[in-house]
Amino acid sequence: MNRCEILYWTIGIIHSEHTIEENTPIQPVYAKGCKGHVDLLPEFVDGLRDLSDFSHIYLIYHFHKSRQVKLIVKPFLQDIDRGIFSTRAPFRPNPIGLSVVELLGIEGNILHLNGVDVLDGTPLLDIKPYTTKFDLHDVKKNGWQDGLDQKTAEKRGKRGYKS
Amino acid sequence: MNRCEILYWTIGIIHSEHTIEENTPIQPVYAKGCKGHVDLLPEFVDGLRDLSDFSHIYLIYHFHKSRQVKLIVKPFLQDIDRGIFSTRAPFRPNPIGLSVVELLGIEGNILHLNGVDVLDGTPLLDIKPYTTKFDLHDVKKNGWQDGLDQKTAEKRGKRGYKS
Repeated sequence: MNRCEILYWTIGIIHSEHTIEENTPIQPVYAKGCKGHVDLLPEFVDGLRDLSDFSHIYLIYHFHKSRQVKLIVKPFLQDIDRGIFSTRAPFRPNPIGLSVVELLGIEGNILHLNGVDVLDGTPLLDIKPYTTKFDLHDVKKNGWQDGLDQKTAEKRGKRGYKS
Repeated sequence: MNRCEILYWTIGIIHSEHTIEENTPIQPVYAKGCKGHVDLLPEFVDGLRDLSDFSHIYLIYHFHKSRQVKLIVKPFLQDIDRGIFSTRAPFRPNPIGLSVVELLGIEGNILHLNGVDVLDGTPLLDIKPYTTKFDLHDVKKNGWQDGLDQKTAEKRGKRGYKS
């Protein structure tokens, strides 16, 4: 098995109030109340039909500020070394980000969002609906996250952001 | 705003019993009992540390058989035209697939999985933990999926696969 190249193109830009990497919440759960929007390239507007009838969507995006790959990282929530694939940290072999955000409405090529944990100016790759039928799973084990203290996680997850 | 190229590399291959596109279940919920595995490139094995303590993981992969972009599609579950971003169909501007599967165990660079809805031989881009803390959202509206008949959806979602 060899490594193969895969080429994608940005389909839009994610905008948010987070302009400093170090202060950007690490997940939507720590970015409640944080508004933002997607500026979709106009050529893709037809693809948005029916989307405003969903309350939540996945944003799949490129961690454009991630300049290195680390297979072992300390997660944002904890000072213990973990394998990168057991975390959501950006230093991944392919720096792909995934967030579930609340969709407030769509005007033309603009998607208004709540719960945005993404750095302003981030290149967008895909949008998918998040649905009851497909995306709610009966989790039995949360690995190292099961041992986290809730208050500490909240504080570290927000990284300075106050909703 | 211009379109920009983004280059990724495959990090492994997803294997499953689904060798015919037309008979591949459309989501893990319709692939219950379907085993499969990820063959991760050995150079990334260190990144798997701690992952086996999670019961569910996201696979992010490349729809390598998707050869065209369609902004309006009929979803697999329904014969009504919908915007591509309101569906999980493969004909996306960037053909990125997303599945939450059950992680049964890890041996070296092999991840044993259950609920695999992915075509055999699919190139893998990323693995992330699916967690109670980050990934369970309070969905208010499921758009066109809210109107689906459960039995019809089950039948169409499986596309011939019997668990």
